[in-house]
Amino acid sequence: MRADVYRFGLKDPSDVSGLREAIEKGVIDPEKIVGVIGKTHGNGLVNDYTRGYLTLCLSQLIGDRLGVPAESVSKRIPFIFSGGVEGVLSPHYTVFTVDPIGAATGQEKSLAIGVAFTPELSVSDVGRQRQIEATAEAVRQAMAIAGIESPDDVHFVQVKGPAFTLIEIVAATNAGLTCATDNPGKLMGFGRAASALGVAKALGEVPASHAQEAAVLHDFSAFSSVASVSAGIEVRVNEIIVAGLSRAWSGSLTIAHRSMLDALDIGSITALATDLGLSPAPQVPATQARRIRAVFVKCEAQRDGTIRGRPHTMLNDGDIDQQRHIRGAVGAIVAAVLNDTALFVSGGAEHQGPSGGGLIAVIAEKG
Amino acid sequence: MRADVYRFGLKDPSDVSGLREAIEKGVIDPEKIVGVIGKTHGNGLVNDYTRGYLTLCLSQLIGDRLGVPAESVSKRIPFIFSGGVEGVLSPHYTVFTVDPIGAATGQEKSLAIGVAFTPELSVSDVGRQRQIEATAEAVRQAMAIAGIESPDDVHFVQVKGPAFTLIEIVAATNAGLTCATDNPGKLMGFGRAASALGVAKALGEVPASHAQEAAVLHDFSAFSSVASVSAGIEVRVNEIIVAGLSRAWSGSLTIAHRSMLDALDIGSITALATDLGLSPAPQVPATQARRIRAVFVKCEAQRDGTIRGRPHTMLNDGDIDQQRHIRGAVGAIVAAVLNDTALFVSGGAEHQGPSGGGLIAVIAEKG
Amino acid sequence: MRADVYRFGLKDPSDVSGLREAIEKGVIDPEKIVGVIGKTHGNGLVNDYTRGYLTLCLSQLIGDRLGVPAESVSKRIPFIFSGGVEGVLSPHYTVFTVDPIGAATGQEKSLAIGVAFTPELSVSDVGRQRQIEATAEAVRQAMAIAGIESPDDVHFVQVKGPAFTLIEIVAATNAGLTCATDNPGKLMGFGRAASALGVAKALGEVPASHAQEAAVLHDFSAFSSVASVSAGIEVRVNEIIVAGLSRAWSGSLTIAHRSMLDALDIGSITALATDLGLSPAPQVPATQARRIRAVFVKCEAQRDGTIRGRPHTMLNDGDIDQQRHIRGAVGAIVAAVLNDTALFVSGGAEHQGPSGGGLIAVIAEKG
Amino acid sequence: MRADVYRFGLKDPSDVSGLREAIEKGVIDPEKIVGVIGKTHGNGLVNDYTRGYLTLCLSQLIGDRLGVPAESVSKRIPFIFSGGVEGVLSPHYTVFTVDPIGAATGQEKSLAIGVAFTPELSVSDVGRQRQIEATAEAVRQAMAIAGIESPDDVHFVQVKGPAFTLIEIVAATNAGLTCATDNPGKLMGFGRAASALGVAKALGEVPASHAQEAAVLHDFSAFSSVASVSAGIEVRVNEIIVAGLSRAWSGSLTIAHRSMLDALDIGSITALATDLGLSPAPQVPATQARRIRAVFVKCEAQRDGTIRGRPHTMLNDGDIDQQRHIRGAVGAIVAAVLNDTALFVSGGAEHQGPSGGGLIAVIAEKG
Repeated sequence: MRADVYRFGLKDPSDVSGLREAIEKGVIDPEKIVGVIGKTHGNGLVNDYTRGYLTLCLSQLIGDRLGVPAESVSKRIPFIFSGGVEGVLSPHYTVFTVDPIGAATGQEKSLAIGVAFTPELSVSDVGRQRQIEATAEAVRQAMAIAGIESPDDVHFVQVKGPAFTLIEIVAATNAGLTCATDNPGKLMGFGRAASALGVAKALGEVPASHAQEAAVLHDFSAFSSVASVSAGIEVRVNEIIVAGLSRAWSGSLTIAHRSMLDALDIGSITALATDLGLSPAPQVPATQARRIRAVFVKCEAQRDGTIRGRPHTMLNDGDIDQQRHIRGAVGAIVAAVLNDTALFVSGGAEHQGPSGGGLIAVIAEKG
Repeated sequence: MRADVYRFGLKDPSDVSGLREAIEKGVIDPEKIVGVIGKTHGNGLVNDYTRGYLTLCLSQLIGDRLGVPAESVSKRIPFIFSGGVEGVLSPHYTVFTVDPIGAATGQEKSLAIGVAFTPELSVSDVGRQRQIEATAEAVRQAMAIAGIESPDDVHFVQVKGPAFTLIEIVAATNAGLTCATDNPGKLMGFGRAASALGVAKALGEVPASHAQEAAVLHDFSAFSSVASVSAGIEVRVNEIIVAGLSRAWSGSLTIAHRSMLDALDIGSITALATDLGLSPAPQVPATQARRIRAVFVKCEAQRDGTIRGRPHTMLNDGDIDQQRHIRGAVGAIVAAVLNDTALFVSGGAEHQGPSGGGLIAVIAEKG
Repeated sequence: MRADVYRFGLKDPSDVSGLREAIEKGVIDPEKIVGVIGKTHGNGLVNDYTRGYLTLCLSQLIGDRLGVPAESVSKRIPFIFSGGVEGVLSPHYTVFTVDPIGAATGQEKSLAIGVAFTPELSVSDVGRQRQIEATAEAVRQAMAIAGIESPDDVHFVQVKGPAFTLIEIVAATNAGLTCATDNPGKLMGFGRAASALGVAKALGEVPASHAQEAAVLHDFSAFSSVASVSAGIEVRVNEIIVAGLSRAWSGSLTIAHRSMLDALDIGSITALATDLGLSPAPQVPATQARRIRAVFVKCEAQRDGTIRGRPHTMLNDGDIDQQRHIRGAVGAIVAAVLNDTALFVSGGAEHQGPSGGGLIAVIAEKG
Repeated sequence: MRADVYRFGLKDPSDVSGLREAIEKGVIDPEKIVGVIGKTHGNGLVNDYTRGYLTLCLSQLIGDRLGVPAESVSKRIPFIFSGGVEGVLSPHYTVFTVDPIGAATGQEKSLAIGVAFTPELSVSDVGRQRQIEATAEAVRQAMAIAGIESPDDVHFVQVKGPAFTLIEIVAATNAGLTCATDNPGKLMGFGRAASALGVAKALGEVPASHAQEAAVLHDFSAFSSVASVSAGIEVRVNEIIVAGLSRAWSGSLTIAHRSMLDALDIGSITALATDLGLSPAPQVPATQARRIRAVFVKCEAQRDGTIRGRPHTMLNDGDIDQQRHIRGAVGAIVAAVLNDTALFVSGGAEHQGPSGGGLIAVIAEKG
């Protein structure tokens, strides 16, 4: 088996010209696409419709090429988009393909990809034990599909789970369901948190006794160092992409990750670049940066309102959401080191790395 | 003569407790204060009143200690505040003092400070030749006061000029005056641009033949590499603080600057840190970071809508102003390298450094 | 001929369930759809992608039912969407159908609809004479198609014209074209203004000598009292829907309009309601409000920064765009009088009604 | 006793020229000022510093004229400012004076004013029983001071209570205190809610058995129809102004109020205008509008996400806070009917009128 990764720029959320051209030129076989992760133009909050717009356009393109309905495509392939390209960030999407034929030598580990889905989650499942368990189960399935044997070889688990609008929350409440919160934005946080704990449980990062609903948004010492979770109103299940390393896979790509300890932890970024054979001194040169195929970052405003002992203002701001602030800040630091702005930088890092920090994972050509 | 620099955190825009305590403890003699530069909580745009709020509170504190009216203080001391602490930035203000008694050895250059003001500028002067000329003249005065002989020894020229609300622009137009634009936010840009060309003219960075009104917001090859200009509705003149190096001054502080070539030019930041004897590898260690006394950064969204060949979205955004985007991004990169978040990062870098880039200047204890 | 109008709610910008159901139930024959006007969830500014999203979904639905490609649908049918449902406004879209068979008695005037398109307009045509002339010509065509003989019988001319992103403007400039402005948001204003003057010219509201490029965003005494113009990056021509009254048409619907003189001109709203046989005392009762089939409103923040002698703050605001302010305000007043929140309320009323005011047009069942 | 009310425009939050001039001309005796209520330029959310800025400027002006420190003024006189002048609203402040000498005839009721303060409230008191009880007690005091005998004669109870930033909430939590929520914006809502229940308890609108902490943000059937509550970081107590009618007072002013049942309840606005002898048909004519001396409105986005059966989007919006949406909408409707834009319109109407609606109170010259 062989995994490949292709990144395309996005002029607007309907711009699927990059993938279309790659298919037409035979670079990508649409049958082999197993997932797409991207960063779209919206605000990344509840009322961000750019995620659904790109999902529709990509599933139509792929469905068209495969001769199947678009709906069946988006049921089979996770389209995981996070809105918000603050500051220097550039809208883009990354296509993952798996070719079952590629012969592995068994000598060297290569990028391995597995995909799975939970059953449908209702608004009252979000942030609850059911979401933790369903996610953990789906992560195990995806690992099995990817043939990744050890949790140590898992470097990135992307989850996209459902968000719900106020009207849906109210309807559920009126129907007798109990939701974790009646605030749509906050419910997205509950969903990210429970999903991250599900990943942590599957990988043994958190003992089952602690991967509990009671820890959700409460015990931030319980976290996964490889989870990256987004939420959006355009999905109703948790979609999961596991990326890691395996000797059963061939190909030119590898993956590595680090935890950023806080938003200013530039040392973890340069260390990760060095892990991959890049030279960030202080910036990866443009010639090397071409080896970078995808970058995934989670981040969050530090909950105590400070950073390195000085106050920040992100959590008091009524004009700009805290997620937009922190994505713009951390995205810029990563971009400056890696010399790359087409980064997947996502806010809301609850239980996805140490509190106030978050995951950074990079897929690159082997050095 | 001896210049000193003190930086205080700002819990809210009226929080002058830091300076008050320093005065009460005898650390700062209010008679010796020659200027204050700071970063306040507002949006940094036309309707940002946090700048005026802090100006009022500081001028009252200082006036009270000097036994003079607050109004006379703000006429004598430039209070130059820029709003907008996006992302990891922390609100603060930096107090500059000059002690005429300090004896210089003449051996070593030390931080030198000079302050001057233009005459009052009307709404129709903004962005025009009169603002260029008045600024150039005031910069020359401030250099003379600072005893800085060569333009090469000038490392930072902070200017704060007037902004005007829509109603004032309309009133001026109705009175027969011609304003550079009828858009209040854009007029701030004209004012920054003309002021920067005035600095460039005074320092010989741009020949007089090119420091012309026709170049304002037009010929971006004409720029000053040490100018930093802000605008706000709370002033009616251009206030100017020149900071440089001189053998006529004593003290423990030095200053250096670099031009960032674009928003991702992390190399200029690390180079500047190295110039000052700091070790940014990749981050200045906390023990060294204590030597940093003040950091001044100008930045702007690249005008062609791209950065390093990829599109950014800052100039199409109807929700977050481009200045808020770029301050958050560049501020985070500088903070990550210098290990310091109390940075003066100001958007709107028209003619203040290369197009798409901007100035970074640091005052630090000598190494 | 007979025109009908159907209004559907929009849960999100891809929600075309209302029209789908109406087609499935035989209420609407997709062959007879001639235009759609709607109000989507976005910010209504340059980076609003909800307009394009709904356009795609509707053109796919209709194309699917007609057995033609979606692209050919959106070429034939104007989809005119304005983003921004501030305050009490509710997202929705209104479908216009024309049945060529309906027999008119010739006794009574009924709603008449005509649709036309200009040729493609480039970024440098926007705000220029070419846009004025092309729009005027298309309005004349649409009137002829609608069989409306007198301009006095035209009550509403909706235009949707192209907007361009910063990158497109820069590319055009680099290619030697001269754009009216390099600011994407401001260019939308130029386009609305020139298009409105084109409508005014076609209807004889402004003499040809004044419907000139020189008047664009300059001479606000030149305006059309029936034009409503939006701009968006999802179109490249001016799409035009003319609605008026004609004895050649049958059906149960009528249309009327008024000019609001300023944002507080509630009297024009109640007068218009009364024109249509409704009783706004002070609010149209719910039983009567059911007769209302569509409402179109243009509005703008008064350019001198005041309203009724007191300052407003809309033009100084760096956090919320002026269009979002004024749509929320005027939309609420109209909603409160008409007892209806599914209103098409669009900001940017340059030359579309008296300066500071704008058009209000209502399609209703005959009384 | 005689109460008077003076309203002044506000060019920026430090503009106290109106009151200064009135004092200098002898129109207002600063000794007689008992409270100020106003609407400032900020966002009305946690990071709105325009309220504190105006408070400082007014307390300095008044202190200066009285020969007392500004701090003692703001301890004695409630300065109750709400930020956010969305849409057509105009920044302003209203000064309440009480002259103890004015002789009442005892024939006619006139405007009566009483002022009181609670003890200091800590961050953990906010939203709790202690805030309910302290507010109720202060309302009773203010009624007694005003000589208003029956709760039926109370038409307006303005409360301004404390808000806290994230850092203060975190500090309290670390110190072992339990706050109602760790979200600064949401804590403002808890404070408004508990304060409103305190008013309702004092006036007998809600039985003591229901004016309980358990009802806060939970049982919205418990409300006061005359309470108007704001919160801000610039106060640490609940400041209370009670306005009503009493035969013990003389003067030319009267007050009346209504509950708006929802945001579109224009009928309650016209009814209230008619109560005061004005003719809103549909708009109070300018000549009559001069009789209006102050208008106070509370409003909120309907919690179920709909209004009159159609969805609104205010509670899903990540770009504009729901309070800014609803203030702009309801403020515009009131302005259009009353022909007045200098309105105090405040969002966050929890327990201040029926759910989804809110109070409107008007002080006017007797007809």
